[in-house]
Amino acid sequence: MRILGIDPGLRRTGFGIIDASGGRLAYVSSGTIVVPADRPLADRLKVILDNIREIVASAQPDVSALEKVFLNTNPSSTLLLGQARGAALCALADSMLDVHEYTALQIKKSVVGNGHATKDQVQKMVQYLLSLNGLPAADSADALACAICHAHFSPITARLQGAGRLGPAAGRRIRGGRILG
Amino acid sequence: MRILGIDPGLRRTGFGIIDASGGRLAYVSSGTIVVPADRPLADRLKVILDNIREIVASAQPDVSALEKVFLNTNPSSTLLLGQARGAALCALADSMLDVHEYTALQIKKSVVGNGHATKDQVQKMVQYLLSLNGLPAADSADALACAICHAHFSPITARLQGAGRLGPAAGRRIRGGRILG
Repeated sequence: MRILGIDPGLRRTGFGIIDASGGRLAYVSSGTIVVPADRPLADRLKVILDNIREIVASAQPDVSALEKVFLNTNPSSTLLLGQARGAALCALADSMLDVHEYTALQIKKSVVGNGHATKDQVQKMVQYLLSLNGLPAADSADALACAICHAHFSPITARLQGAGRLGPAAGRRIRGGRILG
Repeated sequence: MRILGIDPGLRRTGFGIIDASGGRLAYVSSGTIVVPADRPLADRLKVILDNIREIVASAQPDVSALEKVFLNTNPSSTLLLGQARGAALCALADSMLDVHEYTALQIKKSVVGNGHATKDQVQKMVQYLLSLNGLPAADSADALACAICHAHFSPITARLQGAGRLGPAAGRRIRGGRILG
């Protein structure tokens, strides 16, 4: 199973891709989408949308994972993050990928073993778990941690939902939407 | 000039389309995208994304307008609104449409003549300005008001930017985005 983790942000969106098979993890790729700050909002969101769609098209992940947002920031940065997250989720749904969300506590616990681990500890454990030569950059590390978390949780989810069925794909046209004239 | 106004929301997203030529306004269509509440977040955002793309594809507007968000709600609803707004902006940028944003004050002032007008007054003035037979629904009225606001402001913007040039289209692939490996 190839997992794409995303750490969305309006200025920098991290991504990390791993392969997971029977408890084994292998690093595929990771990086940061750097969004130009001097463009109108819609253009900036389209940078996120286009780049994630391209990453999905080239790496062909089976599933994606994001961190649930912890609301500790000010309202205007929450709005900006929300919009960036909306763009990332649109790109994933548009690419027919199922999206799974995990809290920061779940991610840190599954990567470091401690829900209150520091960023630094997360980076180091990501390096260790994926046998990386160097410490991954912060955005990449968060995205990879999210992917690792899904690798840990998905066998449990699969067992709960029945062998291998992880619910309907998010990518198709959703039938429930209707337009009131 | 055909203008698409959008009033984004995770549960209901209003849209309104008008034609504006030389100070004259003509109603084209309006409605509300009702998003199913019982689906995962990515699916709900995809409903907004798909429906707006379809509306743009069928009505072929030249430009789009949204209300700037006034941050008076709680953090978790700000995040939800931000995500819905991100999906709407992605759909517009993905459809090669320029996006213009106006504050509630600008919209109310240009529609009612009073920046502190009530929702009711906005609905009535939208009905009057577009010669509608009945009062438009609240979501549609807000979206139409946004489109009317752009019809009022765009000649000024065009003059400021030079004859007819309204800046680069938002739709193309934005060149500024780069990926750090």
